[in-house]
Amino acid sequence: MTSAFPHHYEVSLELDPGTPAEGSLATANGPPLVVGPPPQFDGGPGHQSPEDLLLGAIAACHMTTFVALARRKGLPVRGYRAVATGTLEKTREGLRFTAFGLRVEGRTEPGQEAEMRRLLEVAEGYCLVSAALRLEVALEVVVRTEP
Amino acid sequence: MTSAFPHHYEVSLELDPGTPAEGSLATANGPPLVVGPPPQFDGGPGHQSPEDLLLGAIAACHMTTFVALARRKGLPVRGYRAVATGTLEKTREGLRFTAFGLRVEGRTEPGQEAEMRRLLEVAEGYCLVSAALRLEVALEVVVRTEP
Repeated sequence: MTSAFPHHYEVSLELDPGTPAEGSLATANGPPLVVGPPPQFDGGPGHQSPEDLLLGAIAACHMTTFVALARRKGLPVRGYRAVATGTLEKTREGLRFTAFGLRVEGRTEPGQEAEMRRLLEVAEGYCLVSAALRLEVALEVVVRTEP
Repeated sequence: MTSAFPHHYEVSLELDPGTPAEGSLATANGPPLVVGPPPQFDGGPGHQSPEDLLLGAIAACHMTTFVALARRKGLPVRGYRAVATGTLEKTREGLRFTAFGLRVEGRTEPGQEAEMRRLLEVAEGYCLVSAALRLEVALEVVVRTEP
């Protein structure tokens, strides 16, 4: 059951003094993550970047929202894949994300294509992460079937 | 050196068919992450949630931005810790994040307190993730010194 609202979420981060710019991110639920700058900003390999985490939040929010909707509606889900993209540009206000995209491929049983597409689209409207962003996330949906 | 702009970031996510709502998130740089709903939305343990990833992005963006500024200004950084928080509430528009906070503790050498505080505050203004959010991230800064 969903916990009573409001929900309070919290993560903590500590810079690892032995590295140029890496830190250990502790979340409430999962294992700790190593985070640092992306390669585009001179980051080394082997860690997640803030940009990765933001795009990951967009994709994970859509997936979990969709799965909850599909379960409630009894839609058979044979597969779900998503690619989240972000474009970062120099603007007059400084460096800014100027576009977010989410390409989703859902697989369901023959005859359920329309409902699959509908729920994949509805899920984006319920997504808490997308709703927190200034920019709209451009959603592209592909539905495939498996007998 | 920072790569030429625009930057393009991308992550991909695939639902794990053996689980109720968990997926594997592949980022360009770090190891794959398991993601799924948080405990507040009935998620099991051991994975990151979209809410965790979003707060992690806020904290990691501040840390990496601050570290880059501090390096450029020659500020000695003896430590950096941050806690990012988010409040999720029922609103007239539906479930929405209604507050984000970032409490940062920076440690530097005696005599550098004012510069440390200044750069911790300036970093938030440059943070790409915070700039992408509708809500302002409420920043609290504490500076400590170590001889």
